[in-house]
Amino acid sequence: MAEYAPPLNRLIEELKRIPGIGGKSAQRMAFHLLAGDQESAERLADAIRDLKKDLSHCSVCNNITQTDPCPFCSDPNRSDESLCVVEEPFHIAAIEKSGVFRGRYHVLLGALAPLKGIGPEDLRLDKLEKRLKSGQFKEIIIATNPTADGEATSHFLVKALQGYNIHFTRLAMGLPVGSDIDFADQVTIRKALEGRTELTD
Amino acid sequence: MAEYAPPLNRLIEELKRIPGIGGKSAQRMAFHLLAGDQESAERLADAIRDLKKDLSHCSVCNNITQTDPCPFCSDPNRSDESLCVVEEPFHIAAIEKSGVFRGRYHVLLGALAPLKGIGPEDLRLDKLEKRLKSGQFKEIIIATNPTADGEATSHFLVKALQGYNIHFTRLAMGLPVGSDIDFADQVTIRKALEGRTELTD
Repeated sequence: MAEYAPPLNRLIEELKRIPGIGGKSAQRMAFHLLAGDQESAERLADAIRDLKKDLSHCSVCNNITQTDPCPFCSDPNRSDESLCVVEEPFHIAAIEKSGVFRGRYHVLLGALAPLKGIGPEDLRLDKLEKRLKSGQFKEIIIATNPTADGEATSHFLVKALQGYNIHFTRLAMGLPVGSDIDFADQVTIRKALEGRTELTD
Repeated sequence: MAEYAPPLNRLIEELKRIPGIGGKSAQRMAFHLLAGDQESAERLADAIRDLKKDLSHCSVCNNITQTDPCPFCSDPNRSDESLCVVEEPFHIAAIEKSGVFRGRYHVLLGALAPLKGIGPEDLRLDKLEKRLKSGQFKEIIIATNPTADGEATSHFLVKALQGYNIHFTRLAMGLPVGSDIDFADQVTIRKALEGRTELTD
């Protein structure tokens, strides 16, 4: 990478810390900002500065929010009977876009990952247990990822949260809609066979 | 595309008829064959010539086979209680690699596709109905693709095959194993929510 004037170099180095941005991209972004007007640069700088200032975790569900409790926790039109447990705040958006879930969310802010040193204590279940103690939830939909870590987390949650008289369910694993069976991996096909659904006329 | 000696041009034109092979690839393949020895060329030519000569559709299930009935239909170790209905012969290989299905197969050799002019009569259900009349099958697993055409075919089969006292099931649709919820499309997430499974300790 060429050596540039120090202010340019400093921006390039800062941009490169962001995952997915390599040296070439950082350089292209920095030169784009340099070529633009000062006002655009200020707007981006302010947006970056204010990002963390204006946002925090919801005190109820751990979602990222500007208001506390977050819009999902405070919405009176959502059902208090089912709780969807996800790994990360952005998974809420993924589930919302399906348009079929109208209950509440809880964000674990991670998943069990022994290889990364993330154990049960890091999931801070106390916050989740406090919500279950209210007794309003009838079903917990465990929507952790369909990966080894997500599955381990799901098993752990079911074990750890016994005794609340709550029904646990898991998002179905199977063939993604619109795909071809020929492109599915063998574990997915096994899950699709094991989880096959009843068809009626 | 450059003009070559007629025998070379003829091979390039023939190779280009194969889906996925464009002009450049065809040219590269043709020059590779030209540079190799005559024996390799003869082997490939023979393999292509014998392909259709040695293979036919299984008279029972429509699979592509060298023996009739095909190995899946004649295997005494497979169960006659469940029948897995697929669109194409290569879908049998996809399901076999999961290692969990030990019943029989039936290949429709297509799916309903009104836009391509493929209607119910093209699926030739008489062959499938003849198998159901034997009365041995208790479950039909409809493993057509999780696409609009595959779904339409599944609905059609359930309607058309009523009255055989057979249980119809469909491969589960949902999140592919190992993926991230964030990358799933909304219809797949809807299916994963609707088809959520029970979890017990």
